[in-house]
Amino acid sequence: MEPSQSTKKSGTYDTVIIGAGAAGMTAAIYAARYRMRTKVFGREVGGLLNEAHKVENYPGYSSISGFELMMRFKEHLDHFRVPVSDENVTGAKKDGDLFVITTDKGSYRTRTVIIATGTIRRKLGVPGERELKGKGVHYCATCDAPFYGGKTAAVVGGSDSAAQAALLLSEYADKVYMIYRKARLRAEPITVKHIQDNPKIEVIYTTNVTAIKGASKVEKVVLDTPYKGSYDLPLDGLFIEIGADPANTVAQDLGLAMNEKGEIRIDREAKTSVKGVFAAGDITDTDYKQAVVGAGEGALAAWSAYYCLQDMLNP
Amino acid sequence: MEPSQSTKKSGTYDTVIIGAGAAGMTAAIYAARYRMRTKVFGREVGGLLNEAHKVENYPGYSSISGFELMMRFKEHLDHFRVPVSDENVTGAKKDGDLFVITTDKGSYRTRTVIIATGTIRRKLGVPGERELKGKGVHYCATCDAPFYGGKTAAVVGGSDSAAQAALLLSEYADKVYMIYRKARLRAEPITVKHIQDNPKIEVIYTTNVTAIKGASKVEKVVLDTPYKGSYDLPLDGLFIEIGADPANTVAQDLGLAMNEKGEIRIDREAKTSVKGVFAAGDITDTDYKQAVVGAGEGALAAWSAYYCLQDMLNP
Repeated sequence: MEPSQSTKKSGTYDTVIIGAGAAGMTAAIYAARYRMRTKVFGREVGGLLNEAHKVENYPGYSSISGFELMMRFKEHLDHFRVPVSDENVTGAKKDGDLFVITTDKGSYRTRTVIIATGTIRRKLGVPGERELKGKGVHYCATCDAPFYGGKTAAVVGGSDSAAQAALLLSEYADKVYMIYRKARLRAEPITVKHIQDNPKIEVIYTTNVTAIKGASKVEKVVLDTPYKGSYDLPLDGLFIEIGADPANTVAQDLGLAMNEKGEIRIDREAKTSVKGVFAAGDITDTDYKQAVVGAGEGALAAWSAYYCLQDMLNP
Repeated sequence: MEPSQSTKKSGTYDTVIIGAGAAGMTAAIYAARYRMRTKVFGREVGGLLNEAHKVENYPGYSSISGFELMMRFKEHLDHFRVPVSDENVTGAKKDGDLFVITTDKGSYRTRTVIIATGTIRRKLGVPGERELKGKGVHYCATCDAPFYGGKTAAVVGGSDSAAQAALLLSEYADKVYMIYRKARLRAEPITVKHIQDNPKIEVIYTTNVTAIKGASKVEKVVLDTPYKGSYDLPLDGLFIEIGADPANTVAQDLGLAMNEKGEIRIDREAKTSVKGVFAAGDITDTDYKQAVVGAGEGALAAWSAYYCLQDMLNP
């Protein structure tokens, strides 16, 4: 008996979702509801949101840790029996009507691709940063703030994430500095007010860190502008919160149109410049990076992938 | 002493949000976080989603009733002490740099407006519909399905909402018909499978209801195509689930650009064609009507309103 179309194509997925943060997991939930044959790759389930100490702006949860919220997303996804593979995606290419996704363990054929790879944290790029990483230099306040009970720590950056990190640190440390290159924090106004009202936090404006020093652990940082008469600021720990860059290697492989920041250009239906490829979440050129915005894009991406698939299978 | 700028303008809101469904409440949560002076009008907190028996696609909640989910949104909003007024918005107009929103109880000046008015359920428009409304003719299965224990009911429509209504009815009624004008349901594939697997539900395709009959309550409907040899289908109740029209009277008042369906055209930042006016949720021209998509738009609308306000106040 001749194998049916579906048997012949049994190695082919309807969609491969790369990334398992808020956007990728939402895309996976929707893809499963559309009964698409779905594969999800995500080295870290939850992504960047895992590092958020408190999330108070995902509608429906007044206050929840980022990790806990992402576990709720994961439980939701588990209801549809769509596993998340921790294989590392190393490449992607178009192959006729299909796409081939390569990982460190194999390669996978799929009719559509949803990219939700998010961002990679930016490094400061100063002497001492690499050497003292994990020895007082940190990139995740939620993860490492609890080690600073009774100590002095600083946050580099002026974003909402940076301010949230400072607020969290103030719950442990005796003294927290925020060191920011500009004259005014760019955090949300409500967060700025919390910073101003917090007696433990001091903001050092229009100042950059030029080096991190210490024998076996952080002892001080060097500033480019004197603070209280000194270029040296003694510290036990430094949290670097200066943003993140788009994780766009798969997007590059597939030749997707991107903006000057390296974010994937999408339209209002989460379509990229290449047919069959969709994107959602922090990797896209949507300016406002929020869990609920990325989740909305994830739903749109799965919906668009579903209708793209219908067009492919019933031309 | 001369009153300060803020005292003089004390009657002016930073933003007025019209609608308190998923999109409107998310906009309100974000507006509050931006410390904007915010007024929310919503005759029905929760909006259309209140009527959903089960919501299984709002990420983070595997399965929850629409009413319960909307109560979680409301509790979330309550944390920011932003009340929802049940005044009925009757008109809106531009007045210089401001907007004036009129309700049945007063008028309100605001710098920006966020429209999240959603949709109004569509009527069938056949004889007997108005007369027998509430006497066997229903528009909300979640609200009224429990009255049909052991009875026979039908749903008109083929959308996902219609199919969900039929599934819910089948938990009470002995027999449920779906009457649909087309040859194939347009519900989500997973929902179609549930319909097909349900022994109580029978779908009557390519058929319209032309009249609803009954002395003091629904007794039967008249079909335009015979079913099992008869134009009459005896029923205890009829649930009309044929979609909804955009609630766009405020949009019309403000002269916003709309599409052919009467939905407000927005860009990727939830901006409408009129500066200072934003829209989110089912009222917009986003094709995919989902709670999480509307919530994402609500966040974007508040963010855009906030930056619009910054531009107005610091030109």
